Amino acid sequence: MTIDLDALYTDLHRHPELSFQETRTAGIAAGHLRDLGLEVHENIGITGVIGVLANPSTGSGIQGPVVWIRADMDALPVKEDTGLPYASTATGVDPDGDTVPVMHACGHDMHVTAMIGAVERLVASRDQWHGTLVVVIQPAEEYGQGARAMLDDGALDRFPRPDIVLGQHVTPLPAGTIGLRPGPQMSASDGLTVTFHGRGGHGSRPQATIDPIVMASAAVMRLQTVVSREVDPHDLAVVTVGSFHAGTKNNIIPAEAKLQLSLRYPDEALREKVLEKVERVVRAEAQASGAEREPDIETLHVLPATINDADATARVAAAFRSAFGEASVIDPGLFTGSEDVSWFARDAGVPLVFWFWGGADAEKFRAAAAAGTLEKDIPTNHSPFYAPEMHPTIEVGVGAMVAAAREFLG
Amino acid sequence: MTIDLDALYTDLHRHPELSFQETRTAGIAAGHLRDLGLEVHENIGITGVIGVLANPSTGSGIQGPVVWIRADMDALPVKEDTGLPYASTATGVDPDGDTVPVMHACGHDMHVTAMIGAVERLVASRDQWHGTLVVVIQPAEEYGQGARAMLDDGALDRFPRPDIVLGQHVTPLPAGTIGLRPGPQMSASDGLTVTFHGRGGHGSRPQATIDPIVMASAAVMRLQTVVSREVDPHDLAVVTVGSFHAGTKNNIIPAEAKLQLSLRYPDEALREKVLEKVERVVRAEAQASGAEREPDIETLHVLPATINDADATARVAAAFRSAFGEASVIDPGLFTGSEDVSWFARDAGVPLVFWFWGGADAEKFRAAAAAGTLEKDIPTNHSPFYAPEMHPTIEVGVGAMVAAAREFLG
Amino acid sequence: MTIDLDALYTDLHRHPELSFQETRTAGIAAGHLRDLGLEVHENIGITGVIGVLANPSTGSGIQGPVVWIRADMDALPVKEDTGLPYASTATGVDPDGDTVPVMHACGHDMHVTAMIGAVERLVASRDQWHGTLVVVIQPAEEYGQGARAMLDDGALDRFPRPDIVLGQHVTPLPAGTIGLRPGPQMSASDGLTVTFHGRGGHGSRPQATIDPIVMASAAVMRLQTVVSREVDPHDLAVVTVGSFHAGTKNNIIPAEAKLQLSLRYPDEALREKVLEKVERVVRAEAQASGAEREPDIETLHVLPATINDADATARVAAAFRSAFGEASVIDPGLFTGSEDVSWFARDAGVPLVFWFWGGADAEKFRAAAAAGTLEKDIPTNHSPFYAPEMHPTIEVGVGAMVAAAREFLG
Amino acid sequence: MTIDLDALYTDLHRHPELSFQETRTAGIAAGHLRDLGLEVHENIGITGVIGVLANPSTGSGIQGPVVWIRADMDALPVKEDTGLPYASTATGVDPDGDTVPVMHACGHDMHVTAMIGAVERLVASRDQWHGTLVVVIQPAEEYGQGARAMLDDGALDRFPRPDIVLGQHVTPLPAGTIGLRPGPQMSASDGLTVTFHGRGGHGSRPQATIDPIVMASAAVMRLQTVVSREVDPHDLAVVTVGSFHAGTKNNIIPAEAKLQLSLRYPDEALREKVLEKVERVVRAEAQASGAEREPDIETLHVLPATINDADATARVAAAFRSAFGEASVIDPGLFTGSEDVSWFARDAGVPLVFWFWGGADAEKFRAAAAAGTLEKDIPTNHSPFYAPEMHPTIEVGVGAMVAAAREFLG
Repeated sequence: MTIDLDALYTDLHRHPELSFQETRTAGIAAGHLRDLGLEVHENIGITGVIGVLANPSTGSGIQGPVVWIRADMDALPVKEDTGLPYASTATGVDPDGDTVPVMHACGHDMHVTAMIGAVERLVASRDQWHGTLVVVIQPAEEYGQGARAMLDDGALDRFPRPDIVLGQHVTPLPAGTIGLRPGPQMSASDGLTVTFHGRGGHGSRPQATIDPIVMASAAVMRLQTVVSREVDPHDLAVVTVGSFHAGTKNNIIPAEAKLQLSLRYPDEALREKVLEKVERVVRAEAQASGAEREPDIETLHVLPATINDADATARVAAAFRSAFGEASVIDPGLFTGSEDVSWFARDAGVPLVFWFWGGADAEKFRAAAAAGTLEKDIPTNHSPFYAPEMHPTIEVGVGAMVAAAREFLG
Repeated sequence: MTIDLDALYTDLHRHPELSFQETRTAGIAAGHLRDLGLEVHENIGITGVIGVLANPSTGSGIQGPVVWIRADMDALPVKEDTGLPYASTATGVDPDGDTVPVMHACGHDMHVTAMIGAVERLVASRDQWHGTLVVVIQPAEEYGQGARAMLDDGALDRFPRPDIVLGQHVTPLPAGTIGLRPGPQMSASDGLTVTFHGRGGHGSRPQATIDPIVMASAAVMRLQTVVSREVDPHDLAVVTVGSFHAGTKNNIIPAEAKLQLSLRYPDEALREKVLEKVERVVRAEAQASGAEREPDIETLHVLPATINDADATARVAAAFRSAFGEASVIDPGLFTGSEDVSWFARDAGVPLVFWFWGGADAEKFRAAAAAGTLEKDIPTNHSPFYAPEMHPTIEVGVGAMVAAAREFLG
Repeated sequence: MTIDLDALYTDLHRHPELSFQETRTAGIAAGHLRDLGLEVHENIGITGVIGVLANPSTGSGIQGPVVWIRADMDALPVKEDTGLPYASTATGVDPDGDTVPVMHACGHDMHVTAMIGAVERLVASRDQWHGTLVVVIQPAEEYGQGARAMLDDGALDRFPRPDIVLGQHVTPLPAGTIGLRPGPQMSASDGLTVTFHGRGGHGSRPQATIDPIVMASAAVMRLQTVVSREVDPHDLAVVTVGSFHAGTKNNIIPAEAKLQLSLRYPDEALREKVLEKVERVVRAEAQASGAEREPDIETLHVLPATINDADATARVAAAFRSAFGEASVIDPGLFTGSEDVSWFARDAGVPLVFWFWGGADAEKFRAAAAAGTLEKDIPTNHSPFYAPEMHPTIEVGVGAMVAAAREFLG
Repeated sequence: MTIDLDALYTDLHRHPELSFQETRTAGIAAGHLRDLGLEVHENIGITGVIGVLANPSTGSGIQGPVVWIRADMDALPVKEDTGLPYASTATGVDPDGDTVPVMHACGHDMHVTAMIGAVERLVASRDQWHGTLVVVIQPAEEYGQGARAMLDDGALDRFPRPDIVLGQHVTPLPAGTIGLRPGPQMSASDGLTVTFHGRGGHGSRPQATIDPIVMASAAVMRLQTVVSREVDPHDLAVVTVGSFHAGTKNNIIPAEAKLQLSLRYPDEALREKVLEKVERVVRAEAQASGAEREPDIETLHVLPATINDADATARVAAAFRSAFGEASVIDPGLFTGSEDVSWFARDAGVPLVFWFWGGADAEKFRAAAAAGTLEKDIPTNHSPFYAPEMHPTIEVGVGAMVAAAREFLG
């Protein structure tokens, strides 16, 4: 190997970029792909990169099969607290124009690193397979908008259409473990922005105002009942209020309060129910406050469920078991997290296989599992403390993507 | 008169400045005071201005009495929505580094204008009185910190100590009306910042987190019970949560939530009770969430009650009645708003007289009062719609300050 | 004196009776009045008693003035916890058919005792006054329905119409103190029953139900904001949920939840506002739960403000000062409690004077006042620990009623 | 057949009895069992009945195997609203001494009916099997106390110990369908009583009280977050507040509020977590109110998870498929409901098989399932509208119990 993946990973980790602003990351990825001999296209869906490696079987001129392998590259507005020597101190400007800390709190730096490593290995072994490899370096997964942006930018038309789409995500499973399952692998999700309208005024004269902070706080409390009372306890649903912003000073009652919600469900039926219930609660709580204007409910993003094709997943799982050993491959269950990777497969009408690979210190993980303190001791994605162990996470990420891609490349 | 007060007012209104950043306003005020012949000192308490006019009685060399007349000059992070031709479109950078709209939503531009007009008249009539006039242009009243900053900067030691302190505030009383009362005129107030500590994580995995938005929302709801259940209905107390900030994205559960509270009460006894109850609720709600770290409760500012000296107030009220007519002078009751003006008098150990003068369109006010729609139709201080009528508000403000000062200047 | 008032008081205290069930109490009162020579009528307004003593001035045959003096006699569904030797262990059957403990937790036993003592003294001194004394022993003040019941039963038509109505209430002021004021003396009040309709079902299947306990609990929390956010902090208003009943077992989600509310305000304007806000909150919270049926809001009782006539009150206050000393008569402020006594005066269109007299141990009261622990140390009416000191409370109650009545009896 | 099961069912339905008061029901069941030739013992565990039918194989004298078949017989404090001609109008006296409506809202009347029918058939076919049949008619399943009461009364020692325990429950599956699964079949459950202690007083003086209704309402709202925020969305947990009782009148703030909670979880690990969280919330909400006394948390009952033995369940399922057809037997999933039947098997250390059989109109069920309105259209156990269709529910219940028992009777 000539690419120093450790150096690539720590460099990316140190320089995280917010969604649709991943110009440095995209440039680095594009550079490596170009160095490896791929035909590289940049700025697909604002900052996305696509690299194509056509490797037809000798003499035949046939290009297929076409395998899309995808990694996402954006980071999050989180202040890193890992204490790592390569921890991020970066800041960025978010869509509201606020300067915020930025961190690779979801491991996308690891995704890009493993992808570059996998492409290097696939290029090195190109005489052992044939077909067309399309490398997708996607922006803005965290906004749930990057895959759509690339597709809307013509990704399916401008490049060889896939026969299969492959992707992977690093998680707090023990390093060395790979998890995948046929069928629902990740939840569907909606992102909503709710703006409550009150009437502002002086903090000492609440009676002349309609307090939007009380209105929104009551709504937050009431929204808990959607999951606790209205969803079948057997069903999986999550209603998270991830941000709440209102007001500028202690003695001014503001005119509005803004919530951002993340909703999760395994299927469309429950999605419709939960959306309806959330809207009902939001509107009623505005009425309870005597709001003079209806709250605004806007959709930030809609993410479909990530559904693994049963046959393709069986093939990939077998490849993983043969590469990493029987015990390393588990069924991780349905994740409540969501992904936009499936838009590529859905739009193309082809199978998807998406898997997780572990990044947590294996011993620490097992000790915490035994002690029943997993949730407290093992940081999860999006936490300020989250960072995968570099080894063997990089190696397993590279190996898994190579094994899966080779399963479909003739 | 040579100073164009209308032009001064609209200029100040167009160029509001946040607390402790009032350099332009201070410069304009200082320039006028200097032009009027006062000895002017700038940057007292960061941006404060003090002008001194010694006018001893002829031949005697005696300087007393010393009368401090005070106007505050800072504006608020509010987006102006008055539609006035001279409405503000200004922005400023708040203490968090965020760019925010700025507006004279509390009428301090009117205070400065009336003060300059009053000084001009007092200078013009200097042969009719003697003593020392100290003009105090105070910053950061909205933070409750400006008076303290000027005092901590030596204002009492560096300039003639007052025999009396006078101040005034424009309000949504009908223009032409002046309100004052002996004893408690404005409430005591504390500004608190409460930071709830949870545990951050991915929005789809609430069980691995301690959700600070739920914690803080529950606290907001519970804090309502301090006033509704724990304060004697005869007593006046206000517990306002003026800002609530937590989180950056819909799918990240943040690690903390920050509230800013404004508390009001007429006296120290109720102050202690309410502070204790607020702290009790805040700590218990953190416990209800299983918080691993106690919430932080910090004091932003402490404002004492604004207590008018009985004798001095009787003299000022009589002067007002004689200047504006019996019917124009009312007892406005105890205001729930708070002021830091009384620090000047408290530190000096001298009487204070602080009054309100009306800025609302008198006819509109009376119609709204008759219809019982005052709260809806007459915008109050700190509202995006608040602005006093220019006339006769400027004239009454000038006249009131002159009449009150002359009452004490020999 | 021949009537043993101590024995009368302890007997009444031991045998409290719920509203409209005061047959024993009424019988005892009627017996004493009859023994004292009054013309007695029973069962006026179910269990009320009226005694008439015509005492025209000699020779003239003139009957006037007519003075109504009123005492209420019902007790409360409270389990006595005073530890007194004469504490009640009585039970009664409430309007729901439930057997409940009963206690004179509001001191109406003291009212009846003082009334009988006063009548005895007035009879004994009948040669010193002339006019007509009408003694009203009223039921069901606690339901706010007794005065109306007596009036609806023709009290004004069947007996000499009053020129003035007098009444008194024992309170936790120091024994020996009498409090009264012209104008508003007690608040207006409404009693409401709110029934929330959900959908019942098994406790393990909340999703098949609409949980009325969550609905009503959310409403209770939201109702706090009426006082904390929507009423001017200067105004006096109380919104109390005094009872909350729902469900029969832990594992059945019931179909409905029933709240009983007590609302207080000094005037009609605020009454209308608060009632409107309460209804708004109640309806919106049902909507937030997705209730299929609107909540029912019923009026239990409507009590007008108790307004003391200014002139008559001045006369009574002067009589009290002369009888008990200047220092014993205070302005107790506006009480948040309510009374139905004013219906008698309102219906008759005559003045009312209603006063409070203290029943608390004077030394204990002053110690608690000094320590700021009044609310904790001095039990208030309706508490299981409430009972007036027998002496001098009985004597002052008798004396006050005699003095006030004599003021108007020629 | 000589027993009229329709008449038996409608009679039992008309005469429901509360837990541990099932004397009429027990008498009827005992009578039938005696008539059928069983040796009958009454008052086992207050009102329980045990019938023994020893049917040893000819010549051998061997009694085994011993099969316990169990039916529960108590009804619920629910007001029937089915409109059925045989609907209950019965009342009973609950443990608080209150008179309440009573209804067979959980179908235990059907359980007893099917049991009598099954015993009749087993008696009639006694030449085809051998062993010992022990018929258990259990009281107070709804209190979760009946099985324990029978065991504490020596049921295992006084009668032949079981080799297997069998039981069944009617549910809103389509009539004709039987559901069972190996392993966890019903949740573990705890019943808790929480008593919040405030300080009582007059409804107009909340400041002198500690309002237990606000305290308990805040707790109800906060308890929602246990499921919505603190339990893994993949896990099944239910926190239901099934009753809330506080106060007697609108204008008395009571001294305490009492909640009854039903908690559900599939295993001991989650049970411990949820119990700890519930306790944490309850204690913290009392603190938030400044309660002077800790809330009391008492255990009403502890129900273990109902775990079906894998091998025995496979045998029973096969017997059902052969008796009712392949399509009639389904895996109904883990129920959130709970049962105390497993105490019999747990104490004896033998396998349990417990299954559900459908009682809903099959066509209506399928229409509602298609329309997605199951929860609205098909009443569930404990609802005032719940009642199984008599046919074929009785027949299937009889047949299932016979088939299962015969599987183990040699």
